[in-house]
Amino acid sequence: MAKMTERMQELFNKVPTAVLATATADGAPNAVPVGAKKIIDDETILISDQFFNKTLANLKANPKVAVSFWEGHEGYQIKGSATIETSGQRFEETAKWIEELGNKVGSPLKSKGAVIIQIDEIYALAPGPGAGKKLA
Amino acid sequence: MAKMTERMQELFNKVPTAVLATATADGAPNAVPVGAKKIIDDETILISDQFFNKTLANLKANPKVAVSFWEGHEGYQIKGSATIETSGQRFEETAKWIEELGNKVGSPLKSKGAVIIQIDEIYALAPGPGAGKKLA
Repeated sequence: MAKMTERMQELFNKVPTAVLATATADGAPNAVPVGAKKIIDDETILISDQFFNKTLANLKANPKVAVSFWEGHEGYQIKGSATIETSGQRFEETAKWIEELGNKVGSPLKSKGAVIIQIDEIYALAPGPGAGKKLA
Repeated sequence: MAKMTERMQELFNKVPTAVLATATADGAPNAVPVGAKKIIDDETILISDQFFNKTLANLKANPKVAVSFWEGHEGYQIKGSATIETSGQRFEETAKWIEELGNKVGSPLKSKGAVIIQIDEIYALAPGPGAGKKLA
């Protein structure tokens, strides 16, 4: 397990879009932008699934994920393992949050599941000599 | 093989940053932003490697890649196979381009290689019912 710093959490919350990368069991990568994202605690994030297609199939076959986010020349890549919750309190809260989000943007939205990511490692994404450096 | 439309090429050129996703041979994904990108033809793109670390190790072990790019609610994901060129005319041209880019931004840049991606498939990235739809 690895812990996000305050600054990493601040940037994760600030960016409108992070990237969720998954892979098939035999290593074909997939990368999609995600906006419905939340920090649960410093070693756990939640991404709501409204439109996942290949991502969902990949997650079911292979729980390994990367979540990358950046702004300008500062960025971080989280490596972790995902589980999908489609019932229970955390899913119900996610469903409510996404429904309210849909109402706010004037376009109905429905969460199909809460993707819970346990953070295993964190790397720097910034360009330069420190690119790809393991931070946690 | 799949071909990019004019519009896909226009958007690929327009976005400042695309995402290059790779994976280890056993399916741990990795996603990084890339700015030094070019279209070679409608079924081939080039990304210059200045700072690749895990990406480069992944590409050597597993050539499968995804390249995602979007703006607002329009986006595309390319699936393809990568080869790395570190000599020859295409690499020399890339090295010159990146050196000039470094001069322009006032920070020395050096290409370590030209990652050539042959496009196999193209998918929609936009949210909504068409999310993840195969386009080519």
